[in-house]
Amino acid sequence: MSYTIGIDYGTNSVRALVVRVSDGAELGTCIFDYPSGKQGILLDPTDHHLARQSPADYIQGVEIAVKGALSQAAETDGFSADQVIGIGVDGTGSSPIPVDANNRPLALDPRFTANPNAHCWLWKDHTSIREAATITAKAGELRPQFLAKIGGTYSSEWFWAKIWHCLNIDREVFDAAFSWVELSDFVPSLLAGVTDPRKIQRGVCMAGHKAMYAEDWGGLPDKEFLAALDPALADLRDRLFDQAWDASHLAGTLCSEWAAKLGLPEGIALAIGEMDVHYGSIGCGVDEGTLVKVIGTSTCDCAVVSADKEVADIPGICGIVKGAILPGFYGVEAGQSAVGDIFKWFVEGVLGDVTQHGPLTEEAARLRPGQSGLLALDWNNGNRTILVDQMLTGLMLGQTLHTSRAEMYRALIEATAFGARAIIERIKEFGVPVERVVCSGGIAEKNAMLMQIYADVTGCEMRVARSSQACALGSAVGASVVGGAYPDFATAQAAMTGLKDVTYHPIPENQAIYDRLYALYRQLHDAFGGVVESASLGHVMKDLLHLKAEANRQS
Amino acid sequence: MSYTIGIDYGTNSVRALVVRVSDGAELGTCIFDYPSGKQGILLDPTDHHLARQSPADYIQGVEIAVKGALSQAAETDGFSADQVIGIGVDGTGSSPIPVDANNRPLALDPRFTANPNAHCWLWKDHTSIREAATITAKAGELRPQFLAKIGGTYSSEWFWAKIWHCLNIDREVFDAAFSWVELSDFVPSLLAGVTDPRKIQRGVCMAGHKAMYAEDWGGLPDKEFLAALDPALADLRDRLFDQAWDASHLAGTLCSEWAAKLGLPEGIALAIGEMDVHYGSIGCGVDEGTLVKVIGTSTCDCAVVSADKEVADIPGICGIVKGAILPGFYGVEAGQSAVGDIFKWFVEGVLGDVTQHGPLTEEAARLRPGQSGLLALDWNNGNRTILVDQMLTGLMLGQTLHTSRAEMYRALIEATAFGARAIIERIKEFGVPVERVVCSGGIAEKNAMLMQIYADVTGCEMRVARSSQACALGSAVGASVVGGAYPDFATAQAAMTGLKDVTYHPIPENQAIYDRLYALYRQLHDAFGGVVESASLGHVMKDLLHLKAEANRQS
Repeated sequence: MSYTIGIDYGTNSVRALVVRVSDGAELGTCIFDYPSGKQGILLDPTDHHLARQSPADYIQGVEIAVKGALSQAAETDGFSADQVIGIGVDGTGSSPIPVDANNRPLALDPRFTANPNAHCWLWKDHTSIREAATITAKAGELRPQFLAKIGGTYSSEWFWAKIWHCLNIDREVFDAAFSWVELSDFVPSLLAGVTDPRKIQRGVCMAGHKAMYAEDWGGLPDKEFLAALDPALADLRDRLFDQAWDASHLAGTLCSEWAAKLGLPEGIALAIGEMDVHYGSIGCGVDEGTLVKVIGTSTCDCAVVSADKEVADIPGICGIVKGAILPGFYGVEAGQSAVGDIFKWFVEGVLGDVTQHGPLTEEAARLRPGQSGLLALDWNNGNRTILVDQMLTGLMLGQTLHTSRAEMYRALIEATAFGARAIIERIKEFGVPVERVVCSGGIAEKNAMLMQIYADVTGCEMRVARSSQACALGSAVGASVVGGAYPDFATAQAAMTGLKDVTYHPIPENQAIYDRLYALYRQLHDAFGGVVESASLGHVMKDLLHLKAEANRQS
Repeated sequence: MSYTIGIDYGTNSVRALVVRVSDGAELGTCIFDYPSGKQGILLDPTDHHLARQSPADYIQGVEIAVKGALSQAAETDGFSADQVIGIGVDGTGSSPIPVDANNRPLALDPRFTANPNAHCWLWKDHTSIREAATITAKAGELRPQFLAKIGGTYSSEWFWAKIWHCLNIDREVFDAAFSWVELSDFVPSLLAGVTDPRKIQRGVCMAGHKAMYAEDWGGLPDKEFLAALDPALADLRDRLFDQAWDASHLAGTLCSEWAAKLGLPEGIALAIGEMDVHYGSIGCGVDEGTLVKVIGTSTCDCAVVSADKEVADIPGICGIVKGAILPGFYGVEAGQSAVGDIFKWFVEGVLGDVTQHGPLTEEAARLRPGQSGLLALDWNNGNRTILVDQMLTGLMLGQTLHTSRAEMYRALIEATAFGARAIIERIKEFGVPVERVVCSGGIAEKNAMLMQIYADVTGCEMRVARSSQACALGSAVGASVVGGAYPDFATAQAAMTGLKDVTYHPIPENQAIYDRLYALYRQLHDAFGGVVESASLGHVMKDLLHLKAEANRQS
């Protein structure tokens, strides 16, 4: 018997999971809530765009979560920590951390602890909108190939935009940072005892999706391009990395210091870090033809296509990166910027009553497709795919004096389903097969109405992953492969992952109505998203945001 | 000293007001809530479009309300019921009542009491949408002049559409009805003891605005045109009326039976009935250059232009009728289908908490124009002016995950202000002067934030009528004129009406922002209202309604 540990860094907490390699049984788990800020996030009340996180929380969290999970696993007969053969780490991304020349996060230095710019720049930080737009423009002009694989638009959520924004607004932090490391690369390097950032074994997943890394052009963007942004970014390139790795590669082995701290064998395998949803899709059993949707506050969609095939560039898709999810496959990643967050906003923010999720779901489930006369856009947090525009906002249409809160709630759920369909249609159109959809996350597990609506809207059979901890499980699968328990990922996934029994089949009558509603959704989508010039409404939401920003500056 | 009584039939209740003729002092008032149906309205749970009202409630109500008002007035020294010189009546419209050959409402006949089609067809009844569309089409083809003065579109809320719908769905009621009488014509005829519907003195206000009556073409639509709709309507014309009158005319004098019932002198003057808001605008002091807005569940806008002038047809304006408001003036009427109803829907229907009106108003008042990033269309109950389309629906745009309920509340108020501006711009464009706006109704009296927003959005100085009972007061003004106390309306209004001290001046900084928001509003308005072809979104709301209707048919 052997075991691996998956460690999953989420937005509000870190989770460790002890998994039996032979069958994926989950023997112990422990969650550590980040103690800093609001629910683990450092906020700025004057700037909704800012979202940072404390690296100290990450370091404290891995120790507590792993020990907690091991302690729970120890209650299972036959388990011993000596039998743990590897650790895998996934995390949110792009969440870059500025580190010093010793690979120590700047935020641990008392000089910088109070400065949010020295902390981790959490994925959902949108302070770098202007830098992202300039990177998109410059790359379009100088290096169009950089954009082709990331959907045509560089996001404010990503690596270079954030680092450049730091350079623009806080030169002291930028200069103090010897290098910048993604959270999911940093933690394996910490456990491996790496003390030189240039020696960190980084994942191609983050590098390819967030930092414009590709073998085709020799790794990260060339210094000439970076200098066109700012010469200081070109200098930084030498202190980052030349090569990034897929999940078949070792990130290192557990160092003695951390082996002692965690009570694990020294020298066990540390898997290459990946983005949470990428290891998550492995934990859901992703393969060619399966789309994995991790439905949470936002949604991440992952698919794979054999690296032997030609994959066309797909406009508006966050990334197509070789080796990003599974070795030997292109990883295709898309996503919706808000799903659960929209429902939470409506129920908790607008209605102000957290207890209403259940009753509203019950009431909304009794409605038939089209019955409310409502149609909504799912853009309350922008549109990540297929429009790649963080500045888009929500819309609801069709309200009468009789419109009920349950109708509005259902319309918001339907809006996210339409957004999901837009993604599926786009990737299928460009040759990525989607034969079934496997979902993961609490919403998918608990909300049968939502799952049925998604089946009816997308026309796909919807399944739910067996594990409720798919990301951590996927990391443990990765650890099992690099730990030598399996020859490859397909074999490991077959042994360690699975699906729940329930299947949501599309209902033809509902599909027929949703096809018509989706056609209307696409007209709103294209008009307000600026896809269709003639509609001339594409500027409306942006103009409102300008007015909003102006009004806020007056305060 | 002499006194008059104004009687105002609203949507949920009837109010009587005893007024001192010399100065407009309000000595006694009494409200009678209609006892039938839901808040006085007969509804059909399977058809949101249906809204009827019991004529028995009207008859019971006038007696109780007048006696109650007199009893309160009697507490004032020197008042005596003997000194009452006239009664004026206003009511909602178009609210036609089917009556038998003795001018008795069919609904009082036990054979018909349980049949909603035999009751009054309340102004807000929208069951006659198809008939209205056909009338518009037929008139456009055969008698375009009929449409020119009513904004180009015949409404489902109006006289002929409702009667024709009755003919189409309930031949028994139609055949039993000797004639049809508007509520505001029926009550004076009741008090005058008229027992032949052909002898009712009807107001030109209802006739001109709702029944396509005009002297230019010899009164009501000709029989040839009506026969093109249905020969039974042509037959009905003979049992309606040939001539309709302005407010300088007597509707009759108080009959002995009702004089005894009410404790008033027999033979006192009964003013011609007018629509509630028309007498209301008189009670607000309407004159050329003043727009009166009666802000309630919906809004009615009234203006007058000297009958000596040429007034162009104004597209989308409900009506331009000579003598409709003041004798010697064209009356111009416009309106918004829902104003207070939209705020009520959001607070009570969606948030489910009637106590929130106050706190939300306070919080919304602290927001600056444009700050929320929200923009809404005020079409939750369709658009009466300037699009004349009951099938339009609401829209809200700009929601984020941080959007608050107070922001949404303010956006809905702003939406109604934009709708108000669209009306003002339209009538000014066609030569109706608007130099100031006088508002009436509880919302105008209580909600300073709304009044300031209206001032800022429209750029007009906003005033509030002194009387909180402007419609009843205006009816009492009319009774004073026909009762012989004043030679004309201008003199009577100068003596009997006035304004509150407060003035809401437009704030230039706010105006500048609202000008920009209004430009965006107009783009949504024109695109979704079908005004702009190229935007190709005009069908979206209608398509949703088709789907809604289909879904409801499946139940």
